[in-house]
Amino acid sequence: MTAPSEPHPLARLDESVHQRTRLGVLAILAEINEADFSHLKNALQLTDGNLGRHLEVLVQHGHVELRKGSSAGRRRTWVRLTPQGRRSLMSEVELLKVLVSTLEAK
Amino acid sequence: MTAPSEPHPLARLDESVHQRTRLGVLAILAEINEADFSHLKNALQLTDGNLGRHLEVLVQHGHVELRKGSSAGRRRTWVRLTPQGRRSLMSEVELLKVLVSTLEAK
Repeated sequence: MTAPSEPHPLARLDESVHQRTRLGVLAILAEINEADFSHLKNALQLTDGNLGRHLEVLVQHGHVELRKGSSAGRRRTWVRLTPQGRRSLMSEVELLKVLVSTLEAK
Repeated sequence: MTAPSEPHPLARLDESVHQRTRLGVLAILAEINEADFSHLKNALQLTDGNLGRHLEVLVQHGHVELRKGSSAGRRRTWVRLTPQGRRSLMSEVELLKVLVSTLEAK
C-alpha cells in the first residue's frame, strides 16, 4: 500500500468522521438527509448521552446542523448533514476504498 | 441501507478494530505480517505513547502479539497479526464494503 518511509494512507483518516458512532450518524444522514435524535439513537443503539456527545463533535466540525422543534406535542431535535459533512464523508469513503481494495488483494 | 426500526449495519462496527490508529496497525500488518514498533510509528505518524496504548488494546483483544528482541544492538519490539486479528480485520472490511457501496449509490 505504501513504501516503508512514507506515511500510510490511513494516517490521513479524519477522526471527526471515522469514529464509529459519528460515521454511523453521517452514513444515515447521507441516505435520508435529515433524521431526528430518536431515530439515530435507535438505529445506532446508543444512549442519549453518547449520541449527544458525538453530535456535539459533529456540530463543532461543521459536519451536521441541529434544528429544535416539536412534533405531536413532543420536543424533537432534527439533525441534518451539511455540504461540508457530505464532502468529509466522501473523503472517508475514498480512503476506505483504498483500504478495502488493498486488503482484498491479499 | 436499513429500515427505520432495524439497527443500522454500522452499529455492529467493532471499536477494537475500527479505531483509526488500530485499523492502521492491522492494515499494515495484514500486508507485511510482522513489523517493528518504529516502522508502525513512522508509517502512522504517531508518538511512542499513542502507539503503545493502542498496541495494548490490540493485544488485549487478541488481534496482535508482541515479540521483544534486539537488532543491531538496539532493543526492538516486533508486532505480529494473529489469525483472530486477521479475521476481525476482514469482518471490518466486509462492513466497510457495505458502507462504501451504499454511499456510492447516492
